[in-house]
Amino acid sequence: MRTLYHFPLSPFSRKVRIVLAEKKLPFRLVLENFWERRREFLAMNPASQVPVLQEPDGRLYSDSTSICEYLEEAYAESPLLGYTPHERAEVRRISGWFNNKFYYEVTKYIVDEKVYKHFRRAGPPDSNLLRAGKANIHYHLEYITYLMRTRKYLAGDKFSLADITAASHISVLDYLGEVPWSQHDEDLRSWYAVVKSRPSFRPVLDDTVHGFKPAQHYAVLDF
Amino acid sequence: MRTLYHFPLSPFSRKVRIVLAEKKLPFRLVLENFWERRREFLAMNPASQVPVLQEPDGRLYSDSTSICEYLEEAYAESPLLGYTPHERAEVRRISGWFNNKFYYEVTKYIVDEKVYKHFRRAGPPDSNLLRAGKANIHYHLEYITYLMRTRKYLAGDKFSLADITAASHISVLDYLGEVPWSQHDEDLRSWYAVVKSRPSFRPVLDDTVHGFKPAQHYAVLDF
Repeated sequence: MRTLYHFPLSPFSRKVRIVLAEKKLPFRLVLENFWERRREFLAMNPASQVPVLQEPDGRLYSDSTSICEYLEEAYAESPLLGYTPHERAEVRRISGWFNNKFYYEVTKYIVDEKVYKHFRRAGPPDSNLLRAGKANIHYHLEYITYLMRTRKYLAGDKFSLADITAASHISVLDYLGEVPWSQHDEDLRSWYAVVKSRPSFRPVLDDTVHGFKPAQHYAVLDF
Repeated sequence: MRTLYHFPLSPFSRKVRIVLAEKKLPFRLVLENFWERRREFLAMNPASQVPVLQEPDGRLYSDSTSICEYLEEAYAESPLLGYTPHERAEVRRISGWFNNKFYYEVTKYIVDEKVYKHFRRAGPPDSNLLRAGKANIHYHLEYITYLMRTRKYLAGDKFSLADITAASHISVLDYLGEVPWSQHDEDLRSWYAVVKSRPSFRPVLDDTVHGFKPAQHYAVLDF
């Protein structure tokens, strides 16, 4: 059986879950509290990060970008990267934006402070770091709105890994009530509503994490 | 003419320069002081990061991972990602390790504090951040040594983008005299000597940056 070691509020785990679902690949989920650095988990991924994918043949894959590229190469159904090298470069550019820039400027501040500190019993959130994440998110949400002015989806006319990547980050923050929807253009909300309505997104939205109640509108499709 | 907007001490710029050279694609370099956020440069890459590649047809590519994937797809000569999906996943995993983990735990601390603060006239380096980078590098160099115990190159038996990525980061730190070679296994040095001896590496090693003299052994192949 294909197995994904994940954590529900990891945007990188969410991204791979959605890609697997888009490609109609069955898998079972194993919850991994990766910050505990479990010995068997470190042996699977010395970076001690989720997600880790174990394929039915036993082979292990880690680094969420590498996993998504692997799934795209190994399973042709529902291509998520586009067709021409130029299209694919744009999908990868936007995905990279959210995997790196958005993650280090927004997600990491908010999720580390609010969620992982709680689980690691490492004290209360650092309000300066939280504030930095909350301030930085606006610029990124404006970038999405800017892209949506001329595009149907983030990287062009087709739904792609770029949408999955961005929505994975946004959905984690939305769970925590940290997406300032009312301060942004309606186009942002419309894009997210379309993406979160995909059947591949459903199981992700149904997940909850002990100790953290999702924001009221979180799983509502017409929010 | 193909143009690469770069900065000599950006590991991501180095990586793309080496990939272009491995693929024997001619290009001209344009120095971009990306921290100045030049308006024309922001229009080319709203992330305001180097490198940016402009292809002879005028099309623009940014995000170094996206650029390398694009070059691999568009130019078949000298494949740098491996042949099977499983091989390619390993090349991407190790490349991702250095692009993200190594960058945020080592390179960024040292290069931001030593180099970019100087150019931005943002005061002296923060010794706590420098110390963090200097402490963290050991674990990563040990990981390279660990991989080299069973492999000829970082991701397997073939030279790949994983070696280029890791060596790009290490070469920037080596320029600044920040690689503690003597405290690490000979296998680490042997791997780096092989990689830096490739003709594709030469122009990168010949570059200097005003205000920063490279460490004495920096461009010496038998160091």
